[in-house]
Amino acid sequence: MLYPSKLIADAVAEFKRLPGIGEKTALRLVLHLLKQEPEKAQQFSHSISKMRNEIKFCKTCHNVSDNELCAICSSPMRDHSTVCLVETIREVIAIENTGVYQGGYHVLGGLISPIDGVSPNALNIDSLIKRVEENTVNEIIMALSPTMDGDTTIFYISKRLQKFNIKITSIARGIAFGGELEYTDELTLARSIATRTPYESYLIKN
Amino acid sequence: MLYPSKLIADAVAEFKRLPGIGEKTALRLVLHLLKQEPEKAQQFSHSISKMRNEIKFCKTCHNVSDNELCAICSSPMRDHSTVCLVETIREVIAIENTGVYQGGYHVLGGLISPIDGVSPNALNIDSLIKRVEENTVNEIIMALSPTMDGDTTIFYISKRLQKFNIKITSIARGIAFGGELEYTDELTLARSIATRTPYESYLIKN
Repeated sequence: MLYPSKLIADAVAEFKRLPGIGEKTALRLVLHLLKQEPEKAQQFSHSISKMRNEIKFCKTCHNVSDNELCAICSSPMRDHSTVCLVETIREVIAIENTGVYQGGYHVLGGLISPIDGVSPNALNIDSLIKRVEENTVNEIIMALSPTMDGDTTIFYISKRLQKFNIKITSIARGIAFGGELEYTDELTLARSIATRTPYESYLIKN
Repeated sequence: MLYPSKLIADAVAEFKRLPGIGEKTALRLVLHLLKQEPEKAQQFSHSISKMRNEIKFCKTCHNVSDNELCAICSSPMRDHSTVCLVETIREVIAIENTGVYQGGYHVLGGLISPIDGVSPNALNIDSLIKRVEENTVNEIIMALSPTMDGDTTIFYISKRLQKFNIKITSIARGIAFGGELEYTDELTLARSIATRTPYESYLIKN
């Protein structure tokens, strides 16, 4: 597309780099910012630049944080002996928003993927082993995606954790609330019958 | 939603203000910028701030511009006696990208809308009349949306242009290329028959 101004063309090109944003949407966003008061656009630009410059990653769990230790790792209210292993910060936010989990986290930063060339060294696995070696962890909950890469990662990490005397669990896999049995894929359905749970465990204990 | 960092929460809030972007999309965009090199995020933020600060509006046609006069108004290759009247910059970009129009533009900045409280004074109508008074314009092409507000605006402006000896035309309204006759609304279909064109005019003369 041709643009009447290089400044607009540059801003559209930058928006287009974001995931899920095409040229038309990028243009709509740019023209929206153009219609706003200059201060609003400055505030938008400033908050992004500030976020990227000042953000820290927690040195214990690799979650994003405003300080050296994140709010979860430094909270005396949480049970730091239980660690929930997740792929990215997104899952931390999702689990935190359920409001029922009171343990800590460990953000891997990705999944082992031979196809995409992601080796175990690229992930925060060594720091997890170190946390276990320091004897602060009793249980690790594997909360990774139920994909090939997720299963590979769980297999690799549980192998490395074998020599330690800790409990390794996985989040329950089964039929989602509101899901219809009829339309559930066979693998999930078969698994949900094989790993059926006693009725009482339906009630969430807090 | 709860976020592990105030910096992230602020950036998500800013993205959420953009049209068509909800909380989940905003978070995805923020986490994408977080994954990038800091320079990339700076560049994104800088290009927006620069665009909003340095953009100018052409003093003749109100199109966006890098200078006092936009590239179209200052081009000796264009026919400045024909002026295409459009609602926003978006339509200028759309028409320019067809590559067939060689005249100038005039950006109104909106449509007269009694319901939304937009009066003729809020639009760039006086500067259009001034251009006509300066005797530089022979024809005005009304390229406004075929809506109630669009028709009101065309009616108001043509009334004010009555006393001048210029041609006022409107872009053709009819069946779009690829549109099916059967599914076209009755008003459009009736109009397209009433305003039928000779067969030769199908070939675009450049």
